[in-house]
Amino acid sequence: MNFKIDNLQYSNWSRKIFEINREAGLDAVHVTIVYHEDFDELQVVINTWNKHFEENHDLIFLGKNFKDIEKAKSENKTAIFYGFQNCSPIEDDIGLIEKVHEQGCRFMQLTYNNQSLLATGCYEKNDSGVTNFGKEAIKEMNRVGIVIDMSHSAEKSTLDAIEISEKPIAITHANPSFWHSAKRNKSNELLKNLSDSGGMLGLSLYAHHLKDGTNCTLESFCEMTAKTAEIMGVKNIGIGSDLCLNQPNKVVEWMRNGTWAKAKNYGEGTKNKPGFPKQPDWFIDARGFKNLENGLKKAGFNQEEVSGILGNNWYNFYKGIN
Amino acid sequence: MNFKIDNLQYSNWSRKIFEINREAGLDAVHVTIVYHEDFDELQVVINTWNKHFEENHDLIFLGKNFKDIEKAKSENKTAIFYGFQNCSPIEDDIGLIEKVHEQGCRFMQLTYNNQSLLATGCYEKNDSGVTNFGKEAIKEMNRVGIVIDMSHSAEKSTLDAIEISEKPIAITHANPSFWHSAKRNKSNELLKNLSDSGGMLGLSLYAHHLKDGTNCTLESFCEMTAKTAEIMGVKNIGIGSDLCLNQPNKVVEWMRNGTWAKAKNYGEGTKNKPGFPKQPDWFIDARGFKNLENGLKKAGFNQEEVSGILGNNWYNFYKGIN
Repeated sequence: MNFKIDNLQYSNWSRKIFEINREAGLDAVHVTIVYHEDFDELQVVINTWNKHFEENHDLIFLGKNFKDIEKAKSENKTAIFYGFQNCSPIEDDIGLIEKVHEQGCRFMQLTYNNQSLLATGCYEKNDSGVTNFGKEAIKEMNRVGIVIDMSHSAEKSTLDAIEISEKPIAITHANPSFWHSAKRNKSNELLKNLSDSGGMLGLSLYAHHLKDGTNCTLESFCEMTAKTAEIMGVKNIGIGSDLCLNQPNKVVEWMRNGTWAKAKNYGEGTKNKPGFPKQPDWFIDARGFKNLENGLKKAGFNQEEVSGILGNNWYNFYKGIN
Repeated sequence: MNFKIDNLQYSNWSRKIFEINREAGLDAVHVTIVYHEDFDELQVVINTWNKHFEENHDLIFLGKNFKDIEKAKSENKTAIFYGFQNCSPIEDDIGLIEKVHEQGCRFMQLTYNNQSLLATGCYEKNDSGVTNFGKEAIKEMNRVGIVIDMSHSAEKSTLDAIEISEKPIAITHANPSFWHSAKRNKSNELLKNLSDSGGMLGLSLYAHHLKDGTNCTLESFCEMTAKTAEIMGVKNIGIGSDLCLNQPNKVVEWMRNGTWAKAKNYGEGTKNKPGFPKQPDWFIDARGFKNLENGLKKAGFNQEEVSGILGNNWYNFYKGIN
């Protein structure tokens, strides 16, 4: 059985978007539900998601494990898996890791760009690796079944996390830096370590992570995928589109600056282009999976490999979470 | 006019302790009011302090600036200055720095032993220095008038803070490592940098920071003070006793472990001696200031220098805070 999975979306959720994901045939989506929210603020977000599930029960439901991906497929729905892009919701409390897992959290980044209590982000000058609390948190995340996500982390911290974690970790949304040297993209060495340990890379379709940005061609993206497969093997690659549909620009400003700075940081943008970048025309939304399928075949992948990249690889990874 | 100041106490506060501090002639005490409490928890602690001030208005009042030290002297009271041993109360919000200043905070450590959002603590394996948020926080602390305290921070983070801060910083309670190489004690290079920038060192009377611990002699302590004065100059040294009177041992366990670990960390203690260490018999409580006065004179300091170390130096430092 083949599954289609987008392992990172952070859209301004609406029935329309859930319909698009269904139209794209997505059996599962890992959705970012919080960035810098603390535990109390997380509760408000979960209330909003409970409303989404109630109002759109014909399209979506909360996924807890890989069986829910199978269930989604058989019911023509999309299983929604919760993830956090920062560790803010666990605050400084190891006990909150089990609680957020009970509430559905299955992926948590140890840091988002800046230093967190757990590890260093890719926008810091120095990277001290996984901290004392970080080591404890990884152990606890392994125990309860939350995947360590290092998409926005710095290199040493990521290598540390791979080494410390007893379960494979994930980089849910980033690209290799050999193709496009964005701060968020990852080195060959790191990608090799990731796949050697059974970890997954979700290739990103966010323009700032793409060679030539919005003008990136499907061919270029698929050639990059082929080269990445040479480094990592074809079974450790999936899609984490990083789609941010219908988000107002103030959201990306908040993602980058949170509440910790008075000065503005433009992150991957610039002062003149501070907002969300435009998607490339072959991946406006998840329906672009169809274009990816064609493009990957043209780049030389066989049908099984394409199915792996578009969902089965993530499905197999989910099997190991719990 | 001479002032006596103890620039760090964290006792289990009671009228009895306020009386002892008066008996010792303390015009001002910088008290630790929180370690790992967040902003909401800080409010509860401040309520408790408001009760202390109400019930003991003949002994103490909340100090806001150096003039309150003069006022305390003239009224035979002790001015209480609030300080935080960790940056937890500002959470991830730069705006909370001004709020905690309004509530009386005058000293804040950027980190307590472990990595914080602002800097690295002395118990971490690697020290990445002051973080992006840390730089913003220092600027804001400078602006509103909160002293950067690096007592429990790692070396590079402390050197960074000295360099970044536009106002002198403090190490409110620690000793030089040339005398006793505890993790918390400080290198000559760091102490030199501190005094060159106008910063203050508060010498600690906490047994784990003392050569020979509880059995440390007054003579040894005062000789160390003399050698420290050779490195730092005599005007940049004060007392930050770190007295933790009547605290139950569960408090030191919480100080060391907070809520971030399931495994126990014994910090400066050991598994067999996990609790608060005993004070040396010449400094059971603040009345030991009298012994310090005699000891420092015997070690060769003149009266003016002794008065500086026992309070005037801190008084002069307070003049520069606001």
